Amino acid sequence: KQYRIAVIPGDGIGKEVMPEGLRVLEAAAKKHNVSLHFDHFDFSSWDYYEKHGQMMPDDWKEKIGKHDAIYFGAVGWPAKIPDHVSLWGSLIKFRREFDQYVNLRPVRLMPGVPSPLAGRKPGDIDFWVVRENTEGEYSSVGGRMFPDTDREFVTQQTVMTRTGVDRILKFAFELAQSRPKKHLTSATKSNGISITMPYWDERVEAMAKKFPGVKWDKYHIDILTANFVLHPDWFDVVVGSNLFGDILSDLGPACTGTIGIAPSGNINPEGDFPSVFEPVHGSAPDIAGQGIANPIGAIWSGAMMFEHLGEKEAGKSIVEAIERTLAERTLRTKDLGGNADTTACGKAVADMVD
Amino acid sequence: KQYRIAVIPGDGIGKEVMPEGLRVLEAAAKKHNVSLHFDHFDFSSWDYYEKHGQMMPDDWKEKIGKHDAIYFGAVGWPAKIPDHVSLWGSLIKFRREFDQYVNLRPVRLMPGVPSPLAGRKPGDIDFWVVRENTEGEYSSVGGRMFPDTDREFVTQQTVMTRTGVDRILKFAFELAQSRPKKHLTSATKSNGISITMPYWDERVEAMAKKFPGVKWDKYHIDILTANFVLHPDWFDVVVGSNLFGDILSDLGPACTGTIGIAPSGNINPEGDFPSVFEPVHGSAPDIAGQGIANPIGAIWSGAMMFEHLGEKEAGKSIVEAIERTLAERTLRTKDLGGNADTTACGKAVADMVD
Ligand SMILES: CC(C)[C@H](C(=O)O)[C@@H](O)C(=O)O
Ligand SMILES: CC(C)[C@H](C(=O)O)[C@@H](O)C(=O)O
Repeated sequence: KQYRIAVIPGDGIGKEVMPEGLRVLEAAAKKHNVSLHFDHFDFSSWDYYEKHGQMMPDDWKEKIGKHDAIYFGAVGWPAKIPDHVSLWGSLIKFRREFDQYVNLRPVRLMPGVPSPLAGRKPGDIDFWVVRENTEGEYSSVGGRMFPDTDREFVTQQTVMTRTGVDRILKFAFELAQSRPKKHLTSATKSNGISITMPYWDERVEAMAKKFPGVKWDKYHIDILTANFVLHPDWFDVVVGSNLFGDILSDLGPACTGTIGIAPSGNINPEGDFPSVFEPVHGSAPDIAGQGIANPIGAIWSGAMMFEHLGEKEAGKSIVEAIERTLAERTLRTKDLGGNADTTACGKAVADMVD
Repeated sequence: KQYRIAVIPGDGIGKEVMPEGLRVLEAAAKKHNVSLHFDHFDFSSWDYYEKHGQMMPDDWKEKIGKHDAIYFGAVGWPAKIPDHVSLWGSLIKFRREFDQYVNLRPVRLMPGVPSPLAGRKPGDIDFWVVRENTEGEYSSVGGRMFPDTDREFVTQQTVMTRTGVDRILKFAFELAQSRPKKHLTSATKSNGISITMPYWDERVEAMAKKFPGVKWDKYHIDILTANFVLHPDWFDVVVGSNLFGDILSDLGPACTGTIGIAPSGNINPEGDFPSVFEPVHGSAPDIAGQGIANPIGAIWSGAMMFEHLGEKEAGKSIVEAIERTLAERTLRTKDLGGNADTTACGKAVADMVD
């Protein structure tokens, strides 16, 4: 079968890292006999917005809704276009309208990447953060009253539905069950956030009964962030609400020094809609146009895309090629103390794929 | 003037560290000619709850509402009494009913305390987290609908009032202005939490106009937690909502390895009600009764209490005594690789006070 991939480079360094991601995808596809077809789109970008006054065409769903996956660069250029227009006009729209209810990110200490944590070695830290990606704290219910007076107040509701909570927990427990350690950690704050978080805990307990082979525990988010720093080796699969998952999936990569190279998947597990794979880094206007951006985040996201499509071997070959590339100082980009530019680093990974 | 202090040891190791805190307070009071009077209370504890079926007497406000400050140990014993009974029945009650709208915690790399961050030395990290302590995400507005069906959902409102937001920001800007770096960082998430967090940002901008001498910036909470790990030297005063402040004031101490010895103040700046000073650590049932708990959190909280009372010299002398004590391996408790017990460590600090 041939996979149809929608390619959306977006803004800034998104445009520079995507060609390297595609180069590596093609190399891995060739080695593993996978057939890929790419369709390129220029929307979800400042350029497109400047021309059309909106982030995406009205028929964006028809254009990319039937693809097997979406391969995404980066969106947002705060100096030119407010976040709520750019992000809510593309990235968050995809998550909601394509029901990508899983946001998945690895936290993994890689060779050649200096960790800010003392004494941790590659292999010590290797877990996944599973984030609910459609509801929770990112709701649109709320408002403001008594504006511009001393009585002014705003409210915003956190919304958790049984459907929304149960399906992300099921995904997380299944992932835990598939791993050697079979360990799941739930992020909560039920001692302070007294309605929604106890509900989350309740659903975790109910779901845990269906996965007797999985050991599970829970931590309040405050001490959990502390434990990411103090005991990152404790974790295997960590599941959290939209906000808690957002925090943990930036903090985790920071602890492994990989925030500039971390990948992510916005996944609709049922395959009713395409999933989006994108590097965690943004469009980085400050270094855009110089050809020095690190392409590893985009390349690693490509590996996650292969995994998602069921092409595990091709995905694994890319992750291994990334590890071998990062281990060589000369093949790393400047942000990791190397001297390769974006293209040289991308070519190195493509060559390493086997 | 004589200060009247209400002393509430609470549960578990709270009872073991408080005598050492009092010992050091008395030593510093003597050296600096401060007159202290202590009133001891046994409520806010499991023992009290077992006898009376509630955490505090009905007239708790009359009993402790006129004191100059409350010196608190630790509360909660999850195996015996649920968190929502113990915590909401004392600690959170104090915060709300005594309008302690500031939760203040230092993040400071101390001598003798191993930091989990590579290559950081005492002096490199020294900032304050200022947390809103009465509203925000810890609200009691919300509920559940369609229970036990597939349509089940829960909601909980985050509530931010102009009064609540402005007064915590004013406190934080004033604190920043009083420090050499005059730098304030605001924790936000206005790109994802689209109603309350933009409001927070708006009020920060308005307040900043009144403090032209303070440099300020803001970070989304996800990247801010990452920056606590990657660039803890960037911060001077960090202000956040109830939830964000809660997270940052556990993560910060974790980054400096001090989570077991960090102090905190729950402060009503106007002095209409007493403020509560307590170590960040909990009652620690696992080590209670062994006499090995680290008393530094309680002692350091005592220093914060002196500061709050306006006795800056006495407060400073305690912090310096803590630093000198921690620098000596033999005077530290076991959790910090030393061999002192709770009492020996407390006596050492008291001796060092000058
Ligand atoms: C015990 C809990 C309710 C409390 C909080 O979240 O406020 C604690 O974490 C704290 O920071 O004092
Ligand atoms: C850009 C922002 C809205 C987004 C989020 O908070 O979801 C980002 O931080 C992410 O993690 O993808």
